[in-house]
Amino acid sequence: MFKVGIIGATGYVGCELLRILINHPSVEVTAISSISFEGEEFSSIYKSFYKMTDLICKNKSDVIEKCEVIFTALPHGLSEDIANECLAANKICIDLGADFRLTREDEYKQWYGKEFFHKELHSKSIYGLPELNRDKIKTCKIIANPGCYPTSIELGLLPLLKNGLIDGKNIICDSKSGVTGAGRGLSQKTHAAQLNGDFAPYAVGSHRHIPEIEEILGTIAKEKINVTFTPHLLPINRGIISTIYTTPKKELMSYKFNSNIDISQKISSDKITYKEIKSDKIDLEEIYKLYCETYKNEPFTHVLPIGETASIKNVAFTNNCHISLHLNHRCDGIIVVSAIDNMIKGAAGQAIQNMNIILGINETEGLNFIAPAF
Amino acid sequence: MFKVGIIGATGYVGCELLRILINHPSVEVTAISSISFEGEEFSSIYKSFYKMTDLICKNKSDVIEKCEVIFTALPHGLSEDIANECLAANKICIDLGADFRLTREDEYKQWYGKEFFHKELHSKSIYGLPELNRDKIKTCKIIANPGCYPTSIELGLLPLLKNGLIDGKNIICDSKSGVTGAGRGLSQKTHAAQLNGDFAPYAVGSHRHIPEIEEILGTIAKEKINVTFTPHLLPINRGIISTIYTTPKKELMSYKFNSNIDISQKISSDKITYKEIKSDKIDLEEIYKLYCETYKNEPFTHVLPIGETASIKNVAFTNNCHISLHLNHRCDGIIVVSAIDNMIKGAAGQAIQNMNIILGINETEGLNFIAPAF
Amino acid sequence: MFKVGIIGATGYVGCELLRILINHPSVEVTAISSISFEGEEFSSIYKSFYKMTDLICKNKSDVIEKCEVIFTALPHGLSEDIANECLAANKICIDLGADFRLTREDEYKQWYGKEFFHKELHSKSIYGLPELNRDKIKTCKIIANPGCYPTSIELGLLPLLKNGLIDGKNIICDSKSGVTGAGRGLSQKTHAAQLNGDFAPYAVGSHRHIPEIEEILGTIAKEKINVTFTPHLLPINRGIISTIYTTPKKELMSYKFNSNIDISQKISSDKITYKEIKSDKIDLEEIYKLYCETYKNEPFTHVLPIGETASIKNVAFTNNCHISLHLNHRCDGIIVVSAIDNMIKGAAGQAIQNMNIILGINETEGLNFIAPAF
Amino acid sequence: MFKVGIIGATGYVGCELLRILINHPSVEVTAISSISFEGEEFSSIYKSFYKMTDLICKNKSDVIEKCEVIFTALPHGLSEDIANECLAANKICIDLGADFRLTREDEYKQWYGKEFFHKELHSKSIYGLPELNRDKIKTCKIIANPGCYPTSIELGLLPLLKNGLIDGKNIICDSKSGVTGAGRGLSQKTHAAQLNGDFAPYAVGSHRHIPEIEEILGTIAKEKINVTFTPHLLPINRGIISTIYTTPKKELMSYKFNSNIDISQKISSDKITYKEIKSDKIDLEEIYKLYCETYKNEPFTHVLPIGETASIKNVAFTNNCHISLHLNHRCDGIIVVSAIDNMIKGAAGQAIQNMNIILGINETEGLNFIAPAF
Repeated sequence: MFKVGIIGATGYVGCELLRILINHPSVEVTAISSISFEGEEFSSIYKSFYKMTDLICKNKSDVIEKCEVIFTALPHGLSEDIANECLAANKICIDLGADFRLTREDEYKQWYGKEFFHKELHSKSIYGLPELNRDKIKTCKIIANPGCYPTSIELGLLPLLKNGLIDGKNIICDSKSGVTGAGRGLSQKTHAAQLNGDFAPYAVGSHRHIPEIEEILGTIAKEKINVTFTPHLLPINRGIISTIYTTPKKELMSYKFNSNIDISQKISSDKITYKEIKSDKIDLEEIYKLYCETYKNEPFTHVLPIGETASIKNVAFTNNCHISLHLNHRCDGIIVVSAIDNMIKGAAGQAIQNMNIILGINETEGLNFIAPAF
Repeated sequence: MFKVGIIGATGYVGCELLRILINHPSVEVTAISSISFEGEEFSSIYKSFYKMTDLICKNKSDVIEKCEVIFTALPHGLSEDIANECLAANKICIDLGADFRLTREDEYKQWYGKEFFHKELHSKSIYGLPELNRDKIKTCKIIANPGCYPTSIELGLLPLLKNGLIDGKNIICDSKSGVTGAGRGLSQKTHAAQLNGDFAPYAVGSHRHIPEIEEILGTIAKEKINVTFTPHLLPINRGIISTIYTTPKKELMSYKFNSNIDISQKISSDKITYKEIKSDKIDLEEIYKLYCETYKNEPFTHVLPIGETASIKNVAFTNNCHISLHLNHRCDGIIVVSAIDNMIKGAAGQAIQNMNIILGINETEGLNFIAPAF
Repeated sequence: MFKVGIIGATGYVGCELLRILINHPSVEVTAISSISFEGEEFSSIYKSFYKMTDLICKNKSDVIEKCEVIFTALPHGLSEDIANECLAANKICIDLGADFRLTREDEYKQWYGKEFFHKELHSKSIYGLPELNRDKIKTCKIIANPGCYPTSIELGLLPLLKNGLIDGKNIICDSKSGVTGAGRGLSQKTHAAQLNGDFAPYAVGSHRHIPEIEEILGTIAKEKINVTFTPHLLPINRGIISTIYTTPKKELMSYKFNSNIDISQKISSDKITYKEIKSDKIDLEEIYKLYCETYKNEPFTHVLPIGETASIKNVAFTNNCHISLHLNHRCDGIIVVSAIDNMIKGAAGQAIQNMNIILGINETEGLNFIAPAF
Repeated sequence: MFKVGIIGATGYVGCELLRILINHPSVEVTAISSISFEGEEFSSIYKSFYKMTDLICKNKSDVIEKCEVIFTALPHGLSEDIANECLAANKICIDLGADFRLTREDEYKQWYGKEFFHKELHSKSIYGLPELNRDKIKTCKIIANPGCYPTSIELGLLPLLKNGLIDGKNIICDSKSGVTGAGRGLSQKTHAAQLNGDFAPYAVGSHRHIPEIEEILGTIAKEKINVTFTPHLLPINRGIISTIYTTPKKELMSYKFNSNIDISQKISSDKITYKEIKSDKIDLEEIYKLYCETYKNEPFTHVLPIGETASIKNVAFTNNCHISLHLNHRCDGIIVVSAIDNMIKGAAGQAIQNMNIILGINETEGLNFIAPAF
């Protein structure tokens, strides 16, 4: 049993990490910490853990000392020091905050208002999106666990951008997230009486996930990317849907997927006709084959058959990502819909997936959840 | 007191019409009809009307005979005959279905699978969006009440398109609607256990509101318009948010609103700086002035101060439309957010607004609702 | 137009008062106050009022000076002084807090931890439940507007207790309320992510509405009453259901309602048989007649036909109370279900009803809402 | 690996069984059946199972033939025949319907309108509430899995009734359930637009769980029991809270729990004082000790510390039952609050718990869920 711990265990992400790790067959949660609740039983803060754990919140030193893998679930700016300590002690630090997500310090300064404290650490960390960086993750000691919105968008666009098929200056990501994304803190915005029955965008054009999305998409595409990203707050607890609008490059007009891949998943709905998956510029079936091929070995990222539509319900409470592909006839575009659980594939689950990869155990261990149908 | 009636009173739209009309000071609901519930008391079907009305569902002839204004809230294809009868009897027919929304029969055939039964009626009807057609509505006997999604999108884009400021081939409308939009019929999709906690797009690229949106936007812009329209189903009862992404034409680069309009509404949030409302191509303040000027006499359509964001909560249960304007720095675009209550401004309320216009009474009569804050 | 004002306008109750009063045909809201938001436009705090009012929050003196009727919507202990000032200026004070609800100072001390500051005022105030005290309300200058839970329970039990038909020591009130009852303040309990999907009782056996319920029921019954009262928090915004379990006194065995009242409302469901409304001890039809007779002239309190069940949906957003009666065969008891909107009949609406009574205008003026069916 | 199967896999209970069993470490789901969807992939009906299973719905014979343990999740009246076949083939049948819950045929006829088809089977089946019947379950071939409401109520009352401490003729169970309890079928009642924001009791005094509750409570108490049972429909998906009002027998006045049990769980809230847990008749601490002792070895049924209140959130998505105890000072009663997930401890989870017991494996295997805190 590997010894693992959580720094910042009483925030929403920390709580979700603990919930999953307690039942993980190959690890033991040895220590947890919380500034707000130091000295208190975890189960007295989150009553759903009553009789399920007797862990007591200690301080961060206790976690670093006792554990081999340390998860940090903290406000930005607080994880660098901890990562530094972990590295010195030859331990693994998986950071669920933003401290290591951006590689450019100027971008970090602009969006987060802080400098890199330990500049040398940043070249040693890796962005923990397994679908992109699995091999590098295996040998890395500092993981920058991706943001929730970026995870949904990057997985949605990876096959198109990697193959240079869409215009990198004209990507529109209309994303919608459940309220857990706002965290445990209190505000009028998350007051139940305000949120019930409400829905709206927020931080239009100014959300901190923009530079992260643009950097990672740029890395994938090997060119500069600009995204229009609009997050919205859903009156539900969990899940993100990103509806992504792309414009094909000329290359897409005659794109043929270079393989004899067998599409075992048939076009699912009899409402969808052959006509509807072909336009002058785009053959959706070829795009679909490309996505299937890209993700064929991925344990959590699944491409839905043409005719299906990704939804939050079908991935909630799981580490899965569902991607559906749609042809926009009217304007010759490809619409990608990508759904994840913001707290799991968008946070705690992906962090544990990264841990599994680093520890060399089965990548799905402790994460084989099926979404409750209701 | 004008005598009014509802054909199809027991569907969701019919029910909402009745709820508002009962308290309208200048009309009396004289007769209602329902095929499914003919002969039954309305209050036995919708218990919230217990002791509030003693109306009994009769048949459509009864409504046409007794009333001066007839609202039809029926599945498409059933209103043309009724409108014909109304016209013959010199009565007013306000149709909340799709029968008169499209002027081109070929489009109607393609999207609704039917022909126009009474071709001559279609030139006599008018699309009942008061912000666009108020003068024509005043003297018209057949009103095609707009669809819910189209209302939100057309009001959101009218000032930009009328002034030729955006590219009519590159408009993306990402719309989200409450579940009442699906009507009273039963399906797994609207089963509470399925919808709770869920969110997803549907009918991607194939929703019947597309031709209506394109025709009306084309009329406004005086050019052919193509929209990418993606509806989503929200796990709430009421309201539509359309997040609309537009690309400026070159003309917008140096656009100055030609007036000394006084912007009494200041930029509302101190987080928004001057820098953030100007880009190389766009001066958001000028756009804002244009919207304010366009809608300055509108009783229901309100432009929010720069820095505010439209939300469903603030228009739910009202006939209001809230519009907010946002500059997309990253990609030099304008994002318009438009919010309405799909059942009121998107259906019953707008129909009654049209009635008020035709009857020559105060346009806000019976419709002066303020959205409950919770 | 009568001049009215609200002290404490930016809390939930104050906001709801304003929403209703703005559209009241016989009054003008002349001034409002708020300690937290003094000097700010009301519509900048509650955006749903954008363009619907230009009222600015002032201080309480401004309200008392300018208005004839003053509504106080404040934490307990803050209204006595204001009521005193109002009385001195010969103005009407309608208090939506708890300051005047209990007549016994010892009970007030025990449950609210404070003394009466102006003892002489308490004999001059009246408990503003119109169904109980309409005549006294007409000539009173200080109204103690009832609590939300007490309103639902008192209306549910009034006919039985007034006629001495049930055991006053064995009344169980299992009540459930929407989250607006908790007010605008922030807490983990009302965090949307906590409340979504949750339901639980709270303050079991210790809620401050207990002495109010017991006093008013005791006044009705002319004997000492003990209630078991358990409030629960519903994951919805509005509404209270009280499910009330009563045990008949022996007198009920042969109770015959002494009248030839015509029950125009028939037993509504064909599932309910004659057998099911009679037991050895109880004839539910007689009880039903008694309720109908008691409330026959009440504009807002409605007794549902036997076989129907009161629900929150059918009274939400209205000043109505729905009461349904059920026979408990197994244990020979009567179950009364009473439903109101906690913010309207349970607070703002009832306060305005009291105002209408005092001002001598139609009791339903400004309050003729029908519950939206969805 | 034991081979297990589900007959009626596409209803809500069947779907939940499958979701849990797929991840159960000691069993393999070998076959499933569905009348409505025979021949279809399970994952095409419930999309959350996409890529998580390739099971195809077959017919019931296929399940009986291939499996050692057969779960039946069917409308009442359809399981007897299957149980008969299973018994003949020496297989285990765990029935999640009502066919074997009542031992008296006359009661079954009265409430379900049918006779026992295989009378001899009923003496061979056992009511599968492990807390009551664990030893008998171990060797039984036909399990009557308890109803959801009965589970919550029986666990809440077992310690009090077993020890003869409360009046068996005066038990009031006010229960509230999420909408999954109504199953997958469609009705206006479960239409999302109807249920959102609503709450109401239903089937007052006439719910089919009444005879089940009374029989089992009677078996526990060794006397005839009458309950007043009122179910309510919550606008959430999962969970049941039963708020149970009991009246002490004289014996309770001087009740002392006959043991030196160490209460490791202290009184949790400092708001609760010693005074509040003692009345003339009742010492709540003694009752609490009794509950702790009764359930001390139970893996899923947990007694909360005095001062805590059971809630749905803390047991949702788990097989746990939370019980909290409250003293009703006003009326000298004990209020028991019992919370479960209606689909897990109230259905699928308890069935699998029974399977674990019969198979002789760890009782918590596959069921060690912690409730998500949000």
